[in-house]
Amino acid sequence: MTSTDSGGTPKPPAKDPWELPDVSGLTVGVLGGTGDQGRGLAYRLGRAGQKVIIGSRAAERAEAAAAELGLASVEGADNAECARRSDIVIVAVPWDGHAKTLESLKDELAGKLVVDCVNPLGFDKKGAYALTPEEGSAAEQAAALLPGSRVTAAFHHLSAVLLQDPEVERIDTDVMVLGEVRDDTDIVQALAARIPGMRGVFAGRLRNAHQVESLVANLISVNRRYKAHAGLRVTDV
Amino acid sequence: MTSTDSGGTPKPPAKDPWELPDVSGLTVGVLGGTGDQGRGLAYRLGRAGQKVIIGSRAAERAEAAAAELGLASVEGADNAECARRSDIVIVAVPWDGHAKTLESLKDELAGKLVVDCVNPLGFDKKGAYALTPEEGSAAEQAAALLPGSRVTAAFHHLSAVLLQDPEVERIDTDVMVLGEVRDDTDIVQALAARIPGMRGVFAGRLRNAHQVESLVANLISVNRRYKAHAGLRVTDV
Repeated sequence: MTSTDSGGTPKPPAKDPWELPDVSGLTVGVLGGTGDQGRGLAYRLGRAGQKVIIGSRAAERAEAAAAELGLASVEGADNAECARRSDIVIVAVPWDGHAKTLESLKDELAGKLVVDCVNPLGFDKKGAYALTPEEGSAAEQAAALLPGSRVTAAFHHLSAVLLQDPEVERIDTDVMVLGEVRDDTDIVQALAARIPGMRGVFAGRLRNAHQVESLVANLISVNRRYKAHAGLRVTDV
Repeated sequence: MTSTDSGGTPKPPAKDPWELPDVSGLTVGVLGGTGDQGRGLAYRLGRAGQKVIIGSRAAERAEAAAAELGLASVEGADNAECARRSDIVIVAVPWDGHAKTLESLKDELAGKLVVDCVNPLGFDKKGAYALTPEEGSAAEQAAALLPGSRVTAAFHHLSAVLLQDPEVERIDTDVMVLGEVRDDTDIVQALAARIPGMRGVFAGRLRNAHQVESLVANLISVNRRYKAHAGLRVTDV
């Protein structure tokens, strides 16, 4: 007898999907933080007051990238130290180094909240097109390679140009957040919301990450046609 | 010598991507127009004053669906007649009848502008997930089966609930339009713009249709989490 109509224990009210945890005290690592996307994310999060560690294969390159951003909250380290010292680790490496980088950091990433934002794309004279990883998506590849980590996916659709432009105050876009565990996706949504103009929206399980990653190919077509830095808003939420 | 700097013929100015043709005089067929998505699209287009023919395997079912909508601009016919009499044919059949329906209408659809809006999805207890057609996407399957037609893809992300609700005046969403030929995608964009609140945005070639079709799985997760009828807006365009 579980029905509330027949006098059993009433169901708890549904949790407010916009009630998100305070993540302001967490340290965020950005693997591949010397690339455009990673540096842009590091800049935005650091500017919002988040403690950020840019990771790169060579510590000096990471430190130089961090110094260039000119924010006290951002420092650089090699990838292993970046992973070890961070609570949340954003994976922003190029797709062709994705598997190798994650395999090499398996121990450092154990127990960490990993946020994959890699878009596996190919390019030819007709533009960009989706690549299909054997595991289904970059995020699922990360989950397969990092069984000890809490893998999520987010931050796919952001314009690296806008992220890095200090004149831009707000970035008008939603961030689709995917993952298996609600506590983890809630943290990533809260992290996205630290950046003015952004909102983190839960958008499904990792098995539905491929289309979110690949949609960047479409946004590239949009940008070309409309001379824009397109982002996405989810309406009615 | 093609450079304008050296006195050659100057390049024509880039075409305004928002200058779209007048499509108000075209007849729109909706194959699968008795299903929720098809009926909703027929209703919205008819309400906007477009001449619409709902198609179904049985003419009587199509006529009954059209009569239910109560709009003078909408009538019903069997699929073959619907295709033959329409300038633009929206394909809104269930995925599992997609290939068979299109094959059987190959002749009637020759020369027509076909707009595929089918989302190949599977469902299990964890929710919706993307299916991957052998051809890459439903739209590419349509293009392969209809070599004599002008195949585009659009109208994937619309809520059938909102489309069909007569109380809803505006549907706040963009329509991603994909295709190979600009004149064709321009027409589909113009058709989307007939519906109040909607805008058609060019979003790439058919080879990038799969992720647009599959993203419906993510919108289903959004709808479940937020009790919403989610749509998408493309920002900065």
